[in-house]
Amino acid sequence: MNDLRPVAWEGEAVSYIDQRDLPARVERRRASSASEVVEAIATLAVRGAPLIGVFGAYGVALAAAGGACGPALRDQALRIRAARPTAVNLMWAIDRMLAAADGGADAAALLVEAEAIHRETRETDERMALLGAALLPGEGAVLTHCDTGPLATGGMGTALGAIIAAHRAGKRLHVYVDETRPLLQGARLTTFELRQAGVPATLIVDGAAAATMRAKGVQAVLVGADRIARNGDTANKIGTYGLAVAAAHHGIPFYVVAPRSTFDFSLSDGGGIPIEERGHDEVRALGGHATAPEGTAVYNPAFDVTPGHLVTAIVTEYGVLRPPYLESVATLEMRPRLGELVR
Amino acid sequence: MNDLRPVAWEGEAVSYIDQRDLPARVERRRASSASEVVEAIATLAVRGAPLIGVFGAYGVALAAAGGACGPALRDQALRIRAARPTAVNLMWAIDRMLAAADGGADAAALLVEAEAIHRETRETDERMALLGAALLPGEGAVLTHCDTGPLATGGMGTALGAIIAAHRAGKRLHVYVDETRPLLQGARLTTFELRQAGVPATLIVDGAAAATMRAKGVQAVLVGADRIARNGDTANKIGTYGLAVAAAHHGIPFYVVAPRSTFDFSLSDGGGIPIEERGHDEVRALGGHATAPEGTAVYNPAFDVTPGHLVTAIVTEYGVLRPPYLESVATLEMRPRLGELVR
Repeated sequence: MNDLRPVAWEGEAVSYIDQRDLPARVERRRASSASEVVEAIATLAVRGAPLIGVFGAYGVALAAAGGACGPALRDQALRIRAARPTAVNLMWAIDRMLAAADGGADAAALLVEAEAIHRETRETDERMALLGAALLPGEGAVLTHCDTGPLATGGMGTALGAIIAAHRAGKRLHVYVDETRPLLQGARLTTFELRQAGVPATLIVDGAAAATMRAKGVQAVLVGADRIARNGDTANKIGTYGLAVAAAHHGIPFYVVAPRSTFDFSLSDGGGIPIEERGHDEVRALGGHATAPEGTAVYNPAFDVTPGHLVTAIVTEYGVLRPPYLESVATLEMRPRLGELVR
Repeated sequence: MNDLRPVAWEGEAVSYIDQRDLPARVERRRASSASEVVEAIATLAVRGAPLIGVFGAYGVALAAAGGACGPALRDQALRIRAARPTAVNLMWAIDRMLAAADGGADAAALLVEAEAIHRETRETDERMALLGAALLPGEGAVLTHCDTGPLATGGMGTALGAIIAAHRAGKRLHVYVDETRPLLQGARLTTFELRQAGVPATLIVDGAAAATMRAKGVQAVLVGADRIARNGDTANKIGTYGLAVAAAHHGIPFYVVAPRSTFDFSLSDGGGIPIEERGHDEVRALGGHATAPEGTAVYNPAFDVTPGHLVTAIVTEYGVLRPPYLESVATLEMRPRLGELVR
């Protein structure tokens, strides 16, 4: 799956796999302007909080390569930054690119910065995967939601990276995968990645998660994140909050796996996280097939916020954070970026 | 919607609306043998615990009208009885028909008995609807799962009947409807019935239920049931258990609305309820559109069991049962059937 490279710099464009077509077709497309990068992010052709950070950074490099500089470059960067509102990794990556530009980086130096973000994401994933794998049992069932694998980060993934690393380390895990309506990232992407990695997996509808926890003896729930506040409140794909409530009810550990770039240190709690509401036809139709009467009203938040008190631990590249999160997240904030350690 | 008559006796056949085609097409089909009744139930062309009881009873009348009697009639009745394993209303209705046959009822008398079951279901629904409506707030949001309206019973419905009755009584409710994967009874049927009844409704994906409870201030969750044990443990459409856990987490009352025929007085708890597992393509595809890679393993239980301790109250035609259910259900068991009261 890593070979598929969900995003890749190609000189005059950034190529990407259109994830809306997966797994039916592996379609490689090209974004050759900041506007096309915005479009690919907004339509979820490119998705996954860490990956849109990487892709957005390349988008700024693309704008610079196209001749934009100064206020024009900033304007294009800010449009990419606003392509989706919830995942903070995108904002983090664009801010880092803008800081480099403000520091005098030219187009070539901005490409180096984007490539650094990409490389650090891969390194970060590997560290989280090892730390996360160590939390998992030697054998048994685990459950995950949405897609947090290679297609979500451009590395080995966050929550799914930890599961795959545990499998490679010889742990005999069986993964229950929520299909994750409305856009079915679990059914379409996670099952595909787990099969590529050789990890036994079974697909369930989202409504079956609580029953599966009880019937199959699920021993851990692992998810990614789009934004984490200082108290551990975690925005992630819609459905995550209900899973966390069900995990707590069953006494099952609930782990969030996310890099430091997913933390929003400006927010004391999750109340300030903007939640994207998406189009109604995501819910009223699937694959062109209407699933509800025309004109049915829909509430379609793309994310929900899981309170930190339901999160057993947060796995970052700097270590495993435990409650009280106000303290452990403050410690994380003080740590330098991984990039500054390994360069 | 009542005008559509989800099942109807037509002399030499039982006609029914094929609910798999709704809401795109209102297709009326005919079952003219016990085998065709079994097929319609097993494929969910006719579904809803109370309705398959009514339909199954007509199926026995149909077999008798076709000349079957004695062991041959019993054999056909038992095949209908086994068409689906979880909803006990079907078994209750067939057992009642067989008792009538054992008591000497001929084909004409068996039809009278089936019609009595159908009529009692409508009367039962009305009583539950009034009792259930009284539990609901004067205004605010409520949430429901799967379909429990007229299409599920042939009357005014169970949980949805209570909501519709509350609306008619002037309560200003807004209904959040879980789409209810895999077969989307909420998206396809409940939204349709609520629109016909003029009740404001909004469709959500199942994963959004917990977030909706919090964001929209849901004040009650109402569901139907397929089988209830003596301690209140309730088998219902997959996803119900997770809803009940989330409702308890938010301090929201969780109501089950179901007739006495849904109780299995032979079971002390839900551990003995057989849970139907259905085909994998219900999860791997939707409307002929693949949603997951070919060959993906699937776990597809059609129902789950909600422990009685998560159920605030059970609304029956004999009154509202409250915990401890071992006592209140025992009292229900002693009550005569509604039919014996009103005939």
